[in-house]
Amino acid sequence: MAQQIADTRDVDFVLNEQFKVEKFSEHEKFADFNKKTINMIVKEARSLAIKEILPTQSDKGCEFNAGEVKVPEEFHKPFKLFMEGEWLGMSDSPEYGGGGMPRTVSLAASEYFIGANVSFMLYQGLSHGAMKMLEEIGTDEQKEIYLKKMYSGEWAGTMLLTEASAGSDVGALESTAKKNDDGTYSITGNKIFISGGEQDLTDNIIHPVLARIEGAPAGTKGISLFLVPKYRVNEDGSLGEFNDVVCTGIEEKMGLHGNATCSLTLGGKGNCVGTLLGEESKGMKAMFLMMNEARMLVGLQGFANATTSYMYALNYARERVQSAFLLKPKEGGVPIIKHPDVRRQLLIMKSYVDAMRSIIYYSGTCFDTIATSDNEEEIQKWKGMLEILTPIIKGYCTDKAWEVCSHAVQVYGGYGYCQDFPVEQLLRDSRIFMIYEGTNGIQAMDLLGRKLGLNKGKSFMDFLGEIKKTIDEANGIDSLNGLGSKLETIYNKYTELVATMGKTAMSEDVLAAFIHATPLLEITGDLTSAWMLLWRAITATKAMEGKVKKKDMPFYEGQIKTAEFFISSMLPVTSGKIDSINVMNTAVTDMSEEAFGSK
Amino acid sequence: MAQQIADTRDVDFVLNEQFKVEKFSEHEKFADFNKKTINMIVKEARSLAIKEILPTQSDKGCEFNAGEVKVPEEFHKPFKLFMEGEWLGMSDSPEYGGGGMPRTVSLAASEYFIGANVSFMLYQGLSHGAMKMLEEIGTDEQKEIYLKKMYSGEWAGTMLLTEASAGSDVGALESTAKKNDDGTYSITGNKIFISGGEQDLTDNIIHPVLARIEGAPAGTKGISLFLVPKYRVNEDGSLGEFNDVVCTGIEEKMGLHGNATCSLTLGGKGNCVGTLLGEESKGMKAMFLMMNEARMLVGLQGFANATTSYMYALNYARERVQSAFLLKPKEGGVPIIKHPDVRRQLLIMKSYVDAMRSIIYYSGTCFDTIATSDNEEEIQKWKGMLEILTPIIKGYCTDKAWEVCSHAVQVYGGYGYCQDFPVEQLLRDSRIFMIYEGTNGIQAMDLLGRKLGLNKGKSFMDFLGEIKKTIDEANGIDSLNGLGSKLETIYNKYTELVATMGKTAMSEDVLAAFIHATPLLEITGDLTSAWMLLWRAITATKAMEGKVKKKDMPFYEGQIKTAEFFISSMLPVTSGKIDSINVMNTAVTDMSEEAFGSK
Repeated sequence: MAQQIADTRDVDFVLNEQFKVEKFSEHEKFADFNKKTINMIVKEARSLAIKEILPTQSDKGCEFNAGEVKVPEEFHKPFKLFMEGEWLGMSDSPEYGGGGMPRTVSLAASEYFIGANVSFMLYQGLSHGAMKMLEEIGTDEQKEIYLKKMYSGEWAGTMLLTEASAGSDVGALESTAKKNDDGTYSITGNKIFISGGEQDLTDNIIHPVLARIEGAPAGTKGISLFLVPKYRVNEDGSLGEFNDVVCTGIEEKMGLHGNATCSLTLGGKGNCVGTLLGEESKGMKAMFLMMNEARMLVGLQGFANATTSYMYALNYARERVQSAFLLKPKEGGVPIIKHPDVRRQLLIMKSYVDAMRSIIYYSGTCFDTIATSDNEEEIQKWKGMLEILTPIIKGYCTDKAWEVCSHAVQVYGGYGYCQDFPVEQLLRDSRIFMIYEGTNGIQAMDLLGRKLGLNKGKSFMDFLGEIKKTIDEANGIDSLNGLGSKLETIYNKYTELVATMGKTAMSEDVLAAFIHATPLLEITGDLTSAWMLLWRAITATKAMEGKVKKKDMPFYEGQIKTAEFFISSMLPVTSGKIDSINVMNTAVTDMSEEAFGSK
Repeated sequence: MAQQIADTRDVDFVLNEQFKVEKFSEHEKFADFNKKTINMIVKEARSLAIKEILPTQSDKGCEFNAGEVKVPEEFHKPFKLFMEGEWLGMSDSPEYGGGGMPRTVSLAASEYFIGANVSFMLYQGLSHGAMKMLEEIGTDEQKEIYLKKMYSGEWAGTMLLTEASAGSDVGALESTAKKNDDGTYSITGNKIFISGGEQDLTDNIIHPVLARIEGAPAGTKGISLFLVPKYRVNEDGSLGEFNDVVCTGIEEKMGLHGNATCSLTLGGKGNCVGTLLGEESKGMKAMFLMMNEARMLVGLQGFANATTSYMYALNYARERVQSAFLLKPKEGGVPIIKHPDVRRQLLIMKSYVDAMRSIIYYSGTCFDTIATSDNEEEIQKWKGMLEILTPIIKGYCTDKAWEVCSHAVQVYGGYGYCQDFPVEQLLRDSRIFMIYEGTNGIQAMDLLGRKLGLNKGKSFMDFLGEIKKTIDEANGIDSLNGLGSKLETIYNKYTELVATMGKTAMSEDVLAAFIHATPLLEITGDLTSAWMLLWRAITATKAMEGKVKKKDMPFYEGQIKTAEFFISSMLPVTSGKIDSINVMNTAVTDMSEEAFGSK
């Protein structure tokens, strides 16, 4: 049976060989999670994903009728199984029902789940984000009322930011909150683009809502956060009256059809009540807690679609016979994986998918290191690393996921454009990841404007330092020092670029820096990918020095070849991108607006 | 009123200023087409496109029922108007009903038509291809029977190549032809992916069909071409009996929903009759005549979707207010065109769209030069140029069109993902252009394997020579010699690359060359784009030396800025792509098949 969603050998390699996740079990917090347990968890997740979730990965949409949303009927069974398996809070604290496993392991499990059906898993993803925020800043009472039922999947959570005139500019929102005598707030507003804002999977939906308390200042600083349930909750925990949160429609979208993107009207009849979540006018800060998680999740969504697409394309290329091999033109047709251009596309896909898996699991190890450390300096270091990785995972990975999914369509040829095959849906689904939770342009601005200088630049230096360690290690290995020194050349060029860009962004030429924010993010992602692939090659080379199972040989050799390909054939282009920024051409901002086109 | 589909000023600029199309009216063949007439034609085409065709650019699909296909109802009126306006054969010979206008002008008109609705115009595009082939190689009798009714739009034409196991490998086809006593052939076979293979726009459909005469050799050399009407034609020209060409279904696709992609069974009841078109076993050669036209058309489709997307994104960016300007963070929201990252995307889009318009119209001038020349050497030169341009227009332009359409979605943000706005459909529609009429991988192989060495390399030298002329001209202009010399540096690097690649492709390292075929095509396209943009900058600079209307100043300055952006900020990346090929890394072919992923 061909591999689906992810190459199990590669998942195993990254968890157990590249990052040696078992090491976290040395700490009492993760004592239960030895290698055997970890592998069992991943295997179970894979099994649930392939048997129960993957069959629901059709393009079927949600139905909207008179305020109610029906998700595709076939979502109900896997939703129940997912909740029964306690997968929702798998790496959360056991206090309210979490599974307490290392984050790195939960990411591997999530890769399978999300790769099996991203629309389906988005309901759970948003619930999880809401839960985490509630756990972080909710009052004891709020936690008591909501958390357990959210962990168990009886109730879901969402995230209500966007309004028609407040998208990237959240501060422009117009929803209001008016304090009532009993300390609750009456909420009024219209929210759009709410994923899972209404659905029939759960009995209640708990909406964290951004709104402005009457009289609060304009802009982001006047925004507070509220917890607004769809149904009010009685003192005994049972559902009370409808809370005037009305779904007025769902979007017709390019993809992601299984997930309802809702417009919600709050308090249309003056009867919507919420409680303050966190402090007054600190809503944006609180929302950012959730947003960073959400951004990481979006990167994972992109990656999961990419690995699924790659597996489909690889399996298809091995089976589809078409045209003779270039060196044997007189012989019959061969599987298209033999054709140079198809192989080139597959290796591009593989290198990005491998790199993304390592980057994303690596972010898991940062969380797990933080969770198992009592050294404050170390904790700050890895928190900083996560801040640096966030725009890379959200922005770069989703850009590359889109490219990978597009290659998959191309490998399928005309069939790739037809809905009988899965790859065109994965491509359509993938397009949203570059947009939601902050467009990738905003991610690039985040990297340039906030992350380069975070903690006075120390975090970025830590990031660079970790890359350098891997380069140094490769340079100490005979068979890899060629690749190590190639990467080092780009690394050195990159560090200079970053210094220049950092300075320019702080100078009066700030615009000149920001027109290059997106290329900078792309270059940073390329470098991070090369780092991870070189790290993989080192791991494989060391493994090959020991006793190797016969079937592992091509796998390890593939690791080295993939790094060789990316560093030799892709990084020269990255180098060109660095040269391009260094020119610091400002035509983009010099152009008059009229010059973009006649009116 | 905002510009739609294309910037009229730019269309005018390329026709009248960059390529001075009026010059062709000096020849008696185009004597009627002076500047005034040309402008009137383009204006009429634009008017028809915007008023009648653009309103039909919805995502509405075709309906299939019991062998019959209904196109979207709203297609019928513009189809009738298009045919009444005699737009189908606008640049064809008047003998059978063509309009005899210069190809360059018809391309400008087609840009508007196709940009208004590519699904709708594909019916006409294929009809036109079939007509042209028939005109080229049909017998007098075949022409007499079919041509006039095809020109008038009473009957349509198609192109039947693909079968389930014969896509890129046309030679693997299994359709057969058996000669009858009366000289006709009984045809049997199953064809798929036939655009417009069945529809209710015309009374009859004339199918050129590739099939193998019984006993003919395997592979492409045994393939013949037949003309197979849906309904047989009586001697008096009226429709006869049904010719057993049965539509068995239409594809559900990612986009292009308004065009029916049909599966056709020929001779399922043993009652399908065709006549030989051209010579026996020369079917592939004949089909290539049509295919080159078709490939140019696909490039035009990509470009037309791209220009339409750009216009939408530009208009949206000028209207949509969101977030404060970076330099004035305390002031209110501004139109998003003010934001550096949005501008960067718009300028990328503009540079590709401008370059594509020039490349494609330039191909028109090649046709028109051939048509007005009696110098055989010159004719061969421009025919060679068209051969070189074909993979660039089909492959590069459709790749870049996809990128442009994706940027448009990004500029719209979350709205870009919603079907309420047109850009997501344009993106989905665009994905097929990279696949059909020979995947872009095949275009790249065509450039490397056939076109570099065409006419012993003379044609490619001619192509390079034309680029060099423009560089030299820029170098002679004070304000442009900086750009000229930058382009010259890349040009020189490129000519060396081409020499190496040409040699490698002929050596035993042929695979090493062909794994880099796609990057070579991309680099070639980048260079061609830079050439065209520099040519535009020269044209604008010269125009600015004379008397300039006030509103033309930003337009001309925009030409220069666009060239500056592309040459300064994009070409360094191209340079990196050249470096990447020069490494000649062969990991792509060295990888074992197992190493791509576990089975």
